[in-house]
Amino acid sequence: MSINLSSVIEIAGTVAFAISGSFAAMQKRLDVFGVMIMGFVTAIGGGTIRDVLIGDTPVNWMRGYQLPLIIVGTVVATILFKKFIKTFKVTLFLFDALGLGLFTIIGTQKGLSAGLNPGICVALGTITGCFGGVIRDILLNDIPLIFRKEIYATACIIGGTLYVLLINRMDTDAVKIIAVIVVCATRIVAVRYKLSLPKFYA
Amino acid sequence: MSINLSSVIEIAGTVAFAISGSFAAMQKRLDVFGVMIMGFVTAIGGGTIRDVLIGDTPVNWMRGYQLPLIIVGTVVATILFKKFIKTFKVTLFLFDALGLGLFTIIGTQKGLSAGLNPGICVALGTITGCFGGVIRDILLNDIPLIFRKEIYATACIIGGTLYVLLINRMDTDAVKIIAVIVVCATRIVAVRYKLSLPKFYA
Amino acid sequence: MSINLSSVIEIAGTVAFAISGSFAAMQKRLDVFGVMIMGFVTAIGGGTIRDVLIGDTPVNWMRGYQLPLIIVGTVVATILFKKFIKTFKVTLFLFDALGLGLFTIIGTQKGLSAGLNPGICVALGTITGCFGGVIRDILLNDIPLIFRKEIYATACIIGGTLYVLLINRMDTDAVKIIAVIVVCATRIVAVRYKLSLPKFYA
Repeated sequence: MSINLSSVIEIAGTVAFAISGSFAAMQKRLDVFGVMIMGFVTAIGGGTIRDVLIGDTPVNWMRGYQLPLIIVGTVVATILFKKFIKTFKVTLFLFDALGLGLFTIIGTQKGLSAGLNPGICVALGTITGCFGGVIRDILLNDIPLIFRKEIYATACIIGGTLYVLLINRMDTDAVKIIAVIVVCATRIVAVRYKLSLPKFYA
Repeated sequence: MSINLSSVIEIAGTVAFAISGSFAAMQKRLDVFGVMIMGFVTAIGGGTIRDVLIGDTPVNWMRGYQLPLIIVGTVVATILFKKFIKTFKVTLFLFDALGLGLFTIIGTQKGLSAGLNPGICVALGTITGCFGGVIRDILLNDIPLIFRKEIYATACIIGGTLYVLLINRMDTDAVKIIAVIVVCATRIVAVRYKLSLPKFYA
Repeated sequence: MSINLSSVIEIAGTVAFAISGSFAAMQKRLDVFGVMIMGFVTAIGGGTIRDVLIGDTPVNWMRGYQLPLIIVGTVVATILFKKFIKTFKVTLFLFDALGLGLFTIIGTQKGLSAGLNPGICVALGTITGCFGGVIRDILLNDIPLIFRKEIYATACIIGGTLYVLLINRMDTDAVKIIAVIVVCATRIVAVRYKLSLPKFYA
């Protein structure tokens, strides 16, 4: 494949998500295989659900070696250098935010290509960005984090909405970059200022 | 779409299921987005699994705005008027039973249209009726309620079986109404008289 | 269908997996329907996820009555004779190992037929063998067993890898038998000598 900005950022996002899954698994004392699986599902879960819902099969990660090899390499490196990687918490968070932004836009774009309504496409983009983490939390027997803490999916919804509003009015690449930046920025601001959504109790 | 009895009841069932998911989420103190997602998956989970299993993609709720908008509106109203809605417990239960009946028959019918065996169609109808609630309980980290309490899926199996037995012997609309009533009635009788299935311990 | 070695072993594997799911459900005091569902998902879960991921729908168990009837019969028999069946622990373990081996090879083969890369096919075979148990554990609100104990998925990976390496070099039936034996043998040795994968803590 050609090396372009999109694929570089997608790889960075995949790496960040695989690291996030691996750390969550190691904290629950899973064995090596468990860590590997958790790295995988966190990195490819959102895209897999997206492809299954729209019927684009075999799902994305099955079509080549690139993504699986990147994930395997990332998980192995995470296990070997876990102390070292932990010191880059801010870097990892930024990678995660970047991955979230790009995955959201990839999912939204894929929905538009499939001829779905714009609102549905935003939902599809949000699923692509967030549901890897949801599957990770379900497998580790936690209530999914995104339902309880900080603004996460909301960043995807804002970025995806902007994307479908602008895509026919501006240059495609510019819209992609703007939408990714908006997702990242929303997420960074939310974490920096500890913003969270209101809760209700019934 | 045209306004007919089927769509009115489907909307009522969707509303009841969305309310059920929203209340479950608020009881676990999820944030607004979490409540929204739980309302969604409870309302569309069963139909989504059905469509994925038979390969009818993009799945049902992605094909238009009607269902998503109804669910968003229902969840917002549930959050705003939660004290008021709680006073209609019996009404909500009846809506839920009606939704269960109609979702079961829609799923069973869709299986027959796909040329599946009648017994498989009953399973598909039961999945359509019940698995929204199963996904809700998994996401909230509970053992699914339908495996532990009262007759629920059993009502779907009885109604679905009746449907596949009668569908070639009687008028289609009459069979649909009878099957939906049987599901509802089974469910109402089970709850009224606290009927439940026997348990075994290994 | 014709009675041949493959179908006999597949049926044996399905029976063993259905029994495993039923026992897990009875230990959690689920009702009869819950036990039935758990028997089902354990037996057909891996193949269902496989078919959904590659887009081969309707999924396998929906295409005929054979598998569903075998599972229903097995679950009923397990409930009726649970004390008797418990005395055959070693037999059940061997059936489970045999089922694991065959399901892995069926999944790997199905991936090759779909034109996927060999490494992806090994992953697909492992999913087919293991994910029925993963769904069982998620529904029962446990962290999936295969992530925490003994070598399980690793046996599938070894057997699947051997299969894709040998399939173009030897007689197909011979390769199938060798690969199934390797999965079984790895599993038996792992349990007999309490082998497990290393764990890390982050």
